[in-house]
Amino acid sequence: MPTESKVDVLVLGAGPAGLMCAQGLKRAGVNVRIIDKRPKKVAAGQADGVQPRTIEVLQSYGLAERLLREGNQMHMVAFYNPSPNGGIERTGRTADITAPSARYPFEVTLHQGAIEAIFLDSMRELGLEVDRPIIPTALELSHDENELRDPQSYPVTLKHLDFGSEGQDDTEIVYAKFVVGADGAHSWVRKTLGIIMDGEQTDYIWGVVDLIPSTNFPDIRNRCAIHSSNGSCMIIPREGDKVRLYIQLSDKDVVVDKATGRVDKEKTKVGPEELLEVARKSFSPFTIEKAGEIDWWTIYLIGQRVAQKFSVHERVFIAGDACHTHSPKAGQGMNASMNDTHNLIWKMTYVLRGWADISLLRTYEFERRKYAQDLIAFDKKFSALFSGKPRTEECQDGVSHEAFLEAFQTFGAFSCGIGIHYSPSSIPSMPNITELKHQSLTSHQTVGMRILPHVFVRAADARPFEIQDLLPANTKWKLVVFVGDIGPGKIKQIERVAKLADDLGKSTGLLKRYEDGVFEILTICATVKECLNYTDLPEVLRPHWSRVLLDDVDMFGRTGGKGYDIYGVDPSQGAIIVVRPDGYVGTVTPLEGVKDLETYFDTFLIRTL
Amino acid sequence: MPTESKVDVLVLGAGPAGLMCAQGLKRAGVNVRIIDKRPKKVAAGQADGVQPRTIEVLQSYGLAERLLREGNQMHMVAFYNPSPNGGIERTGRTADITAPSARYPFEVTLHQGAIEAIFLDSMRELGLEVDRPIIPTALELSHDENELRDPQSYPVTLKHLDFGSEGQDDTEIVYAKFVVGADGAHSWVRKTLGIIMDGEQTDYIWGVVDLIPSTNFPDIRNRCAIHSSNGSCMIIPREGDKVRLYIQLSDKDVVVDKATGRVDKEKTKVGPEELLEVARKSFSPFTIEKAGEIDWWTIYLIGQRVAQKFSVHERVFIAGDACHTHSPKAGQGMNASMNDTHNLIWKMTYVLRGWADISLLRTYEFERRKYAQDLIAFDKKFSALFSGKPRTEECQDGVSHEAFLEAFQTFGAFSCGIGIHYSPSSIPSMPNITELKHQSLTSHQTVGMRILPHVFVRAADARPFEIQDLLPANTKWKLVVFVGDIGPGKIKQIERVAKLADDLGKSTGLLKRYEDGVFEILTICATVKECLNYTDLPEVLRPHWSRVLLDDVDMFGRTGGKGYDIYGVDPSQGAIIVVRPDGYVGTVTPLEGVKDLETYFDTFLIRTL
Repeated sequence: MPTESKVDVLVLGAGPAGLMCAQGLKRAGVNVRIIDKRPKKVAAGQADGVQPRTIEVLQSYGLAERLLREGNQMHMVAFYNPSPNGGIERTGRTADITAPSARYPFEVTLHQGAIEAIFLDSMRELGLEVDRPIIPTALELSHDENELRDPQSYPVTLKHLDFGSEGQDDTEIVYAKFVVGADGAHSWVRKTLGIIMDGEQTDYIWGVVDLIPSTNFPDIRNRCAIHSSNGSCMIIPREGDKVRLYIQLSDKDVVVDKATGRVDKEKTKVGPEELLEVARKSFSPFTIEKAGEIDWWTIYLIGQRVAQKFSVHERVFIAGDACHTHSPKAGQGMNASMNDTHNLIWKMTYVLRGWADISLLRTYEFERRKYAQDLIAFDKKFSALFSGKPRTEECQDGVSHEAFLEAFQTFGAFSCGIGIHYSPSSIPSMPNITELKHQSLTSHQTVGMRILPHVFVRAADARPFEIQDLLPANTKWKLVVFVGDIGPGKIKQIERVAKLADDLGKSTGLLKRYEDGVFEILTICATVKECLNYTDLPEVLRPHWSRVLLDDVDMFGRTGGKGYDIYGVDPSQGAIIVVRPDGYVGTVTPLEGVKDLETYFDTFLIRTL
Repeated sequence: MPTESKVDVLVLGAGPAGLMCAQGLKRAGVNVRIIDKRPKKVAAGQADGVQPRTIEVLQSYGLAERLLREGNQMHMVAFYNPSPNGGIERTGRTADITAPSARYPFEVTLHQGAIEAIFLDSMRELGLEVDRPIIPTALELSHDENELRDPQSYPVTLKHLDFGSEGQDDTEIVYAKFVVGADGAHSWVRKTLGIIMDGEQTDYIWGVVDLIPSTNFPDIRNRCAIHSSNGSCMIIPREGDKVRLYIQLSDKDVVVDKATGRVDKEKTKVGPEELLEVARKSFSPFTIEKAGEIDWWTIYLIGQRVAQKFSVHERVFIAGDACHTHSPKAGQGMNASMNDTHNLIWKMTYVLRGWADISLLRTYEFERRKYAQDLIAFDKKFSALFSGKPRTEECQDGVSHEAFLEAFQTFGAFSCGIGIHYSPSSIPSMPNITELKHQSLTSHQTVGMRILPHVFVRAADARPFEIQDLLPANTKWKLVVFVGDIGPGKIKQIERVAKLADDLGKSTGLLKRYEDGVFEILTICATVKECLNYTDLPEVLRPHWSRVLLDDVDMFGRTGGKGYDIYGVDPSQGAIIVVRPDGYVGTVTPLEGVKDLETYFDTFLIRTL
């Protein structure tokens, strides 16, 4: 008799997508289990780039501090092109990212195993471990419409082999309310569900080597795009003294298995030493040698594909590499993966708590598939430019430095994750879209994009805070109330705020309409610290003394100030910015817009009044 | 037969001074033991204010992060004075500290037990625990001159009672090379050594209450100095929602034991409720009530005393409250204590390693006793102002708000610890004081004061760094080489730097003259990041790619830049700033000053060549 068990959410795969998912659900109090077929976590190599937006997301779970402590930071990128004198020469240096609003204006590089360890340790503190090694053998989804619609049913059945401690194989049957397949590019969940990947393999073949270099190359600690007459090369500096080299190969070097479209590693003669030899030629006149052993290496063909569906009946989902593959050139893979499940965590939590209709889960595919498609489109252009021949005297058709730089910067905001923009129809069950009605009230804070980072000072004690730190990924919706200037003599604005407090405080109003714990209020005054008391605010707008901020500089003028400008809010008007639990702006309303908010939330939250 | 054991350094007392000492010595690899007579660490109350300079010091050991995470921050101070309409009114708000160069421009409040826990946990990671409870019973110091002069001898014998796990009392005899008595205001070590405290008790009697308040007072989260007609009161907001009130009492309220000069707690009728009642009167017209239980309370007379000696034969030292007591009004006690042993750690380490002459230890008393005396002088003025009657219509002789504010700001730099200034004769064995000879080369960085914090960008990767983080308390002396502008065309400066590299690199030169590991080099170029390569520097000035900084802003201009101005260094000249292992500037020389450096270090370091 196989063992049987029940779980609310079963996550398959303990890579970045699966771990993000499991830690977030566990943190939200969801009954979650995560399994992986690998006996151990990744030790070296693999993905390694964490983009600015992903750092913000990790910070919202309290996980960025360790990443920043352990990781390397890439602030600058250098471009090298063929020199008229032979070899390469530097054609410029610029910022590695092109998103002026990024809270962390750099990329972090750290090997995937160390990033996974951050998740694993934080999960352990929450009382969750990865079950491994576990091999799933069968996945079944109920065909019963009612069962599929009831969030409290267990419509998914998964059988798996568990390699018990005595070495014998036990079969277990798990009944799950929801399953998340975060099981990688060759996803078993995706294949079992018969979900098709759209897209194709490219002709671009790249080798990757992780090593500690001994070199006189002056930009070895910067991200570098090297276009040499011997091929292209990218440098990604890593934690400690490590460096990753991406080295372009020609099809002569590599044997591709026609059937699978993958590199035939047995027949291909290229190893790490050969890769380094190719790099040496591209680096000339600079020298590069390995200072120790080669840490990790691989060769791959770039494939650019997106899954046709990201879920089946909103009961089984796929995430991460399981639903999109692309070149690692812009360091997107791990980021897209973590952001997939970050998008799913709060939605699944709300549905499981009975706070939101199950249709909310449809927005996962809507939002994340669109993003994956944009990502592939971006990757196609970028990879072509990167793999193309550089323009030289002899090769006038080649890619010029200027063209490459322009593309690099055009795609910058997108590639660093800051540009993610969820469309307003993101919640399909919404009858009247109110989200954009008042967009003009926050002219620089776009609805559908992440809340802009900015430093405000706390009214009660003049301590500066990054607003993102006051809007953590704690599953709550945040009403960020820009009350405007309510300083001495601003009678009209003070009256408007009093009216808003009345509207919000009503016994049948917004704050009482849904389950307790949906909302958190943060109030921001356009008044200087010397003359505003937090006690001046109506009580509903200051549920605790810490929830009132001022748009002002700190005591020494080092940080803060001009926040209303940053968001594009008029201090004589004010605005309410509604921030989703994942940090994206859901909608914007005027201070008189409590009715609009009720309409907005009624479309997907389940009312208790 | 009593057990016998040997140890290099025995620390008595596991309060802030003792813990700082033990963790620092352990971190430096010293054989250290720390004992305490209390069975457990402090749970509530006691000291709680950590000053800006102390935060910098904790950061230099990697301990500030947790302090900042757990503690409350005081950025603003508010002043309340008698209102012409009765009760009190606010007369102003200003910055809590008055030290524009502070890296952390605020004070942190956190109860002493939590601060001790930061040390205890970091010691545990290093493999050191506090032995407790242990009661010392006898301390003997050898009279043999040769033994006293030999750093490798064990001239100190301590007997103590160890309450063994079976409840029986075992006597142990410990032979120590050095002993540090950090055993509090009633120090057994001090009394045993017969060291006398100079100074006296004051008439000022204060009560202290820790509570979570329920109040409509708008500055309850700011530090407040309240001068009411009913007496003075100070508010210190604490971690979480806690607040500490310091409440002035009159001698009518309190019975003082004439023999000891301490408050007779048995005969004094004042308890926490009575203290709160006094506070209530001072707060009028605002209300204040306790929202829960009172956490901790005490009543004390202010004593202002400094020990006549801080050590006996440089073999037994006293530190912290054992050598200075003062009012807690300016939150100095715990800070002075931790900074005492911070001063001692590296000196003791150098002597024990055989790197420096034992006379170096004389500088401990020289530097720290001077500081303690200044502290008492400061405390006397400040306490008198604070405890004095406020000026009102009826009391024209009272302390005016303006006079108090002026004193508050005058003493600001001193009270936040930033103003600590060790005199140039700090190392008495030095025959020719060279320390001040070249002071003018760094017109804003005073020799004897702590190295100014500032952000520079790293040449190799344009990552911004706070220079203090690159000068940790790792027992090394840092040569911070401001090489000036060595950009394209700056031939003269490039030549000077090449010459400096030659001087430093000599086989008989500074870097080879003493034990390996004394020095670390950090190079700072006044050249922008777009055109300088770290590989442009001579190798001796870049022992690792991470050791070259630029005086430039980061890629987005958010931080850094103008560093040469901050230190007052001319980019066409340069300078070498020598930073002691405790972060204080030892001396300054020009780039041609390697000979001066040799003279400087020869006075106290033991030569190996």
